[in-house]
Amino acid sequence: MEAYFDNSASTQVLDSVRDIVVKTMTEDYANASAKHRKGMEAEQYIREARAIIAGTLKVQEKEILFTSGGSESNNMALIGGALANQRAGKHIISTAVEHPSVYNPLTCLEELGFEITFLQVDRNGHISLEELEAAIRPDTILASVMYVNNEVGAVEPVEEISRIIKRKNPNTLFHVDAIQAYGKYQIRPKKQGIDLLSVSGHKIHGPKGVGFLYIRNGVKVKPLIYGGGQQSGMRSGTENVPGVAGLGAAAKEMYTNHQEKIGKLIQLKDYMTDRLGELEDVVINSKKGTDSAPQIVSASFGGVRSEVLLHALEDKGIYVSSGSACSSHHPGVSGTLKGIGLEPKYLDATIRVSFGVFNTKEEVDYCIDTLKELLPVLRRYQRG
Amino acid sequence: MEAYFDNSASTQVLDSVRDIVVKTMTEDYANASAKHRKGMEAEQYIREARAIIAGTLKVQEKEILFTSGGSESNNMALIGGALANQRAGKHIISTAVEHPSVYNPLTCLEELGFEITFLQVDRNGHISLEELEAAIRPDTILASVMYVNNEVGAVEPVEEISRIIKRKNPNTLFHVDAIQAYGKYQIRPKKQGIDLLSVSGHKIHGPKGVGFLYIRNGVKVKPLIYGGGQQSGMRSGTENVPGVAGLGAAAKEMYTNHQEKIGKLIQLKDYMTDRLGELEDVVINSKKGTDSAPQIVSASFGGVRSEVLLHALEDKGIYVSSGSACSSHHPGVSGTLKGIGLEPKYLDATIRVSFGVFNTKEEVDYCIDTLKELLPVLRRYQRG
Repeated sequence: MEAYFDNSASTQVLDSVRDIVVKTMTEDYANASAKHRKGMEAEQYIREARAIIAGTLKVQEKEILFTSGGSESNNMALIGGALANQRAGKHIISTAVEHPSVYNPLTCLEELGFEITFLQVDRNGHISLEELEAAIRPDTILASVMYVNNEVGAVEPVEEISRIIKRKNPNTLFHVDAIQAYGKYQIRPKKQGIDLLSVSGHKIHGPKGVGFLYIRNGVKVKPLIYGGGQQSGMRSGTENVPGVAGLGAAAKEMYTNHQEKIGKLIQLKDYMTDRLGELEDVVINSKKGTDSAPQIVSASFGGVRSEVLLHALEDKGIYVSSGSACSSHHPGVSGTLKGIGLEPKYLDATIRVSFGVFNTKEEVDYCIDTLKELLPVLRRYQRG
Repeated sequence: MEAYFDNSASTQVLDSVRDIVVKTMTEDYANASAKHRKGMEAEQYIREARAIIAGTLKVQEKEILFTSGGSESNNMALIGGALANQRAGKHIISTAVEHPSVYNPLTCLEELGFEITFLQVDRNGHISLEELEAAIRPDTILASVMYVNNEVGAVEPVEEISRIIKRKNPNTLFHVDAIQAYGKYQIRPKKQGIDLLSVSGHKIHGPKGVGFLYIRNGVKVKPLIYGGGQQSGMRSGTENVPGVAGLGAAAKEMYTNHQEKIGKLIQLKDYMTDRLGELEDVVINSKKGTDSAPQIVSASFGGVRSEVLLHALEDKGIYVSSGSACSSHHPGVSGTLKGIGLEPKYLDATIRVSFGVFNTKEEVDYCIDTLKELLPVLRRYQRG
């Protein structure tokens, strides 16, 4: 049996995604900016994807900007947003548990003279709303908070966060890294007070190398990539028709029978969480039900190094992540796990299981059975 | 009959490209940075593509950086190259006929205090080597010249250009936009003295949304996109495994029996050029044989507006470009056509035919027959 439990790192594409990618590579392959009919036909795929995605968020089509993925979206929101608004101030607020594609652009901005305040998180992985409020200043131009934490699945109260920000400084832009949230939540940027929202295709069974940035109408962002003037000059480069069409197809399918799909993920998560309870010396860092993201179970196994467990599971065809797999140079110890106050002995003993639409209860059973078999051996081995 | 003659705008992917894209989306879909076996397997596709591409250029694998396409490659070379080397000077040399993805980043650098010298071209579309030499200063940090002009197929003598640059200022970096040249020429950055070279996937029957930048070992370039530290921190973001693998497959196929493939393109170009001679009042802006790029025929038709001709041809299933299709906001009149001294009456009467591996002699015949039928009607109509 195989169990791919690393869907928060990347996913298998849906059949509908594969089909539209193949069609746009082999039949409707023209340049979407070409003036002839085949160009128009290619452009139509972009329009349709834009309409689908705008529909899932209840925003305007022109507020969706396609990018090469979540990292570009985050970079554009932060660097492009900061540079476009620096006359109003150079202070930015973020959190200590952001993904490197938020953290590192912020470091880059620090070198350019911006000042960044990083908020800590509590045991639940949530920032303190009081600390947030205290941190907002007249020169705070941007606040960036992730929707769903990629390591433990903690969900930040984005609507409340926005309300606090806007009350104290209506000019502060609010960026949300929704890379682990889109497809899992009904996100409503208008209602939730989100000005900029980053999304990646391959986390929702869409293609790699494509994503989007929601930019609220009127928000100023400087482009990162200049050229032929595609997408109203905001993101030049020949439109990635197969990628964008695939992203549209994935968004459409993920938001069809959405509650049912999410219900199934929560069932898997809760079932796995319960069954992990059968094992000795296991700490669960995620929550059951709707108290954390539907797709993520984070568990720490006393006396077993996560990398050892990862490879032992891999030998049995079970693929999980140790910490976040989004980075090839991830620091040894996770900021999020420290942040939520996990005991030191568990920090390096943590595994992330992340579900996608293709996972089943049988795979969870297989994983638990395998863990029951492996853990005593690994623990004996590690102690010895 | 259909004849897709817009291959310099975008191409149909090869079967080998489609197959590897599908396989990496549906079977080997893991995140290439994941630590488990499926991650390693995904990473292997990246390694193989890198090895293939490095082999086609006879450069080191670590000198190939994958990007989201030609525009990102050009932006990174220019903005990233300029910002990383600005202590040595703020002067850059380029030409008046570059693609917008070179021209617009340069404009952006001008706003940041860089000074740009744009060299004019002669009737053949070539820069003057004397003017180039005169333009190089002690503070010239970068020179950017396209290999093949995308509008008329003029080929710049890159090796000679590099020699002149390096003789006068060995510290000046030489960037070549090879987006219309890669796959068509045996490019040897080491021998030709190229420090930075931009390539796009979808111009060589590979996928859209992927490309690469060759960065000579030791050349300093600042990243555009920060995050998880992929590709040695030079280009963060989950590796686009299907895109990169598809690009590798396309490079491999284009450089297999390469002379034969290019010979076929030149035959098509020369055949079309000869047959265009059968028509009245036609000026050919490209050259026959090896005097210009193998894939491009640029022709101006007296008394017919290019856009009218483009749509009349499209009605007959023939897809060509009026000027460059790479831009959705292309200025009405082309800088290149003006630059090569085309008479004003032909400026707005120019069509670009661009061939790919799927085109045939029969399609050229069909196009010429169609032109013979259409031109007299369109000319009468336009005069009337």
